[in-house]
Amino acid sequence: MTITGRTRLMAILGDPVAPLRSPALFNQAFARLGMDAAFLAFEVPAGELPAAWAGLTRLRNLDGLVVTMPHKEAVVPLLDALGPTARLTGTVNTVRRRPEGGWEGEMFDGEGFRDGLERAGHPVRGSAILQVGCGAAGRAIAHALARAGAARLLLHDASPGRAASLAGLLSGTYPGLSVAEGRPETMGQDIVVNATPLGLREGDPLPLEVSRLRPPQVVADVIPNPEETPLIAAARAAGCAVVTGRSMHEGQARLAAAYLGIAGWEG
Amino acid sequence: MTITGRTRLMAILGDPVAPLRSPALFNQAFARLGMDAAFLAFEVPAGELPAAWAGLTRLRNLDGLVVTMPHKEAVVPLLDALGPTARLTGTVNTVRRRPEGGWEGEMFDGEGFRDGLERAGHPVRGSAILQVGCGAAGRAIAHALARAGAARLLLHDASPGRAASLAGLLSGTYPGLSVAEGRPETMGQDIVVNATPLGLREGDPLPLEVSRLRPPQVVADVIPNPEETPLIAAARAAGCAVVTGRSMHEGQARLAAAYLGIAGWEG
Repeated sequence: MTITGRTRLMAILGDPVAPLRSPALFNQAFARLGMDAAFLAFEVPAGELPAAWAGLTRLRNLDGLVVTMPHKEAVVPLLDALGPTARLTGTVNTVRRRPEGGWEGEMFDGEGFRDGLERAGHPVRGSAILQVGCGAAGRAIAHALARAGAARLLLHDASPGRAASLAGLLSGTYPGLSVAEGRPETMGQDIVVNATPLGLREGDPLPLEVSRLRPPQVVADVIPNPEETPLIAAARAAGCAVVTGRSMHEGQARLAAAYLGIAGWEG
Repeated sequence: MTITGRTRLMAILGDPVAPLRSPALFNQAFARLGMDAAFLAFEVPAGELPAAWAGLTRLRNLDGLVVTMPHKEAVVPLLDALGPTARLTGTVNTVRRRPEGGWEGEMFDGEGFRDGLERAGHPVRGSAILQVGCGAAGRAIAHALARAGAARLLLHDASPGRAASLAGLLSGTYPGLSVAEGRPETMGQDIVVNATPLGLREGDPLPLEVSRLRPPQVVADVIPNPEETPLIAAARAAGCAVVTGRSMHEGQARLAAAYLGIAGWEG
């Protein structure tokens, strides 16, 4: 890849950016597809997004952005239009220019996660699921699991109000779903999902009690880096099938690439 | 080069950016030096610089910018500190973070041009020079030629007030220099300099009358792309030595790289 004045730009916006895998993933795709485009990471601290956004949207050769922590909610009021999942969840992870001017965003964390889970051989339809973490990514994941036909969803969040409010929203939106918020009990679950950031930093506590995990339970984590989180390691040790954050991330990237008009991603 | 979340960023800010050679030049240097850094082009239209600037300075992994048309004057009031040539010319082409916070800029167009001219074997000291074009780059070039000991400087600009004001400033700053503004007469000049943008776009008129160019006159152009401008072609046809905008650009890049802390640029 040679970057010149003609190279089109895309970027991921977050903080921290050092551990992000999107630049490598997208740049490999650009090289494979022969696209004269580069995918960068822009490190923007929380609270500085509005000013950064006003500036970045002035870059005429910037075609799209992937948005990650801590900006997935903060970017919403800065956009001119939202896709259906972004409206439902109040979060955005991918932003593109609109042909008529301005910028629009959509949220693919949830569908990316579901896609990764199902491609790994674990269908969501009819299953009982425990999900810990109801932040920006968690909200999108719970919506995607509900939409894909999960039978039961038990939600937990360190701040109980967050889990309850998401449970209320889901039960109103998906009448066929049995949804509750409460203690993160793994017993009786088919799939256990970590949607908290715990495991991202060394020394983080486990996001849930792992002592009663047993096959054929499936344990899925949203953290792509490190790929082997303590939760994933404990689940493997218990003999459970695991789906790492890498699968979710690859799913997100596929969907974000399609939204950004990158044709032929899966070659 | 593989861009990841850890890659440090630098960029050139201008409009248009497609013809710019800086990204290729800097990225080749980064590869040669084994630096995990990428050099991009950010296309920002005139008038949108203040908003773009406010945003770009929020990118924590952006370490420096090269500034080109049409922003070399407009960026000056946005900076926290200026180098000596920037103060003298009211123009900036390179910007870096200050260790104490904020951003500072300096202008290397003039010294880059002079460096390119002298490396090509044409000493400035004692020479008679015609320079057409007294815009941002032209002001910096005239200062560098004066500082390097030019004996006589004839300045011309399509807007005569610009040439006269630059001539006044130079005669006050460099008492040993004979400086005037007037018709762009090539006769009697050792060195003829185009510092206008004429030649950048196909179909541009020549920046000066070429019919009386003769060896051993030297003709130098600031336009790096196309390298063979109509002026350069006419000067070659007349048997004159030529120095193209590529030499100036390489000189600028050397000086900008040093200012941006890129060690070992010349291998």
